[in-house]
Amino acid sequence: MAHRRDDVVACALGLLDRYGLGDLSMRRIAAELDVRPSALYHHFPDKQTLLGAVADRLLALGYHPAPAAEWREGVRAVCRSFRDAMLAYPDGAELVATVRGFGLGARAPYDDLVAVLAAAGLDDEAAAIAATTLLHYVLGHTLHEQTALQAAAAGAVPDTASLPSSRFEDGLALVVAGVGSAQSSSRSTVPPVRQ
Amino acid sequence: MAHRRDDVVACALGLLDRYGLGDLSMRRIAAELDVRPSALYHHFPDKQTLLGAVADRLLALGYHPAPAAEWREGVRAVCRSFRDAMLAYPDGAELVATVRGFGLGARAPYDDLVAVLAAAGLDDEAAAIAATTLLHYVLGHTLHEQTALQAAAAGAVPDTASLPSSRFEDGLALVVAGVGSAQSSSRSTVPPVRQ
Repeated sequence: MAHRRDDVVACALGLLDRYGLGDLSMRRIAAELDVRPSALYHHFPDKQTLLGAVADRLLALGYHPAPAAEWREGVRAVCRSFRDAMLAYPDGAELVATVRGFGLGARAPYDDLVAVLAAAGLDDEAAAIAATTLLHYVLGHTLHEQTALQAAAAGAVPDTASLPSSRFEDGLALVVAGVGSAQSSSRSTVPPVRQ
Repeated sequence: MAHRRDDVVACALGLLDRYGLGDLSMRRIAAELDVRPSALYHHFPDKQTLLGAVADRLLALGYHPAPAAEWREGVRAVCRSFRDAMLAYPDGAELVATVRGFGLGARAPYDDLVAVLAAAGLDDEAAAIAATTLLHYVLGHTLHEQTALQAAAAGAVPDTASLPSSRFEDGLALVVAGVGSAQSSSRSTVPPVRQ
């Protein structure tokens, strides 16, 4: 039976939701769709490319940052929604970190941060650095948080006391303050009001 | 043949170096040491605890931050050395992120950052938040960097152009600037000079 590319991605996301990233193999996806593994390679050249499409789907479903009038609030909205989207699926942060490392997807939060920061007056280079720094903070935090949550759910005893959820906002405030110091020093001169 | 706990950890670190984290199973370590897997549980209650000891050994070998007179330089030294230690072994960042999530080891950089920040005048709460934020940035960056490096080495084509090594320092400077803004606002009054 033939399946569309979207069906394969939806099936893979369902398997991620039920079993986690460690059990998300091409063999298992093929079995779930009742096709041979080779049929999947008609749509995806390799597993990494499929994972990129799964990460993009995960973000399409859960990443919806609220619009904001002020750049700091816009940055925080992107970072919060990015974290929420990853936490919605088991191993979501690990999936997105892998896909980002391969450069194969999950670019929406980066592009959104660059747009917010450029609108705030940062030049291309400064906006790229600030967006990358913010995303590395969010990924590092969310990986830590999700590992601890999943360890607790599995009956292990992680040191969750060291990472209450409020710490995400506290840490984000520090990184945004650092970006703010770059913003105020790199911002171009305010153009004169036209007469 | 009986093995000491240290032998098991050294063997596991050697396997990590050769094959990466995905192939680091209790079964494989036991085979390498020519013992039954059950013999390993004499030293470690589970695999996560063994991984914690491996991460601590990795840091004991590669994490040696240079002493610094000034707090910003001390913070940068810890973060740089932490990154270098993780990059020295395949999947080093993934190993440390997992161990930190389980709360089972790799605490040295956190403790060192808290000490540096407390000496700079941050109170306990502010030092804990700043140390956690810095570590999440370093882990997020290093995971991204190491995944991209390993993808390139494996012949995949990652988007490495988006993450030159200099970006680590640029991002670290932003986070340190954010911590600096917290430091200057939370620092207690300078004690009067004794007469």
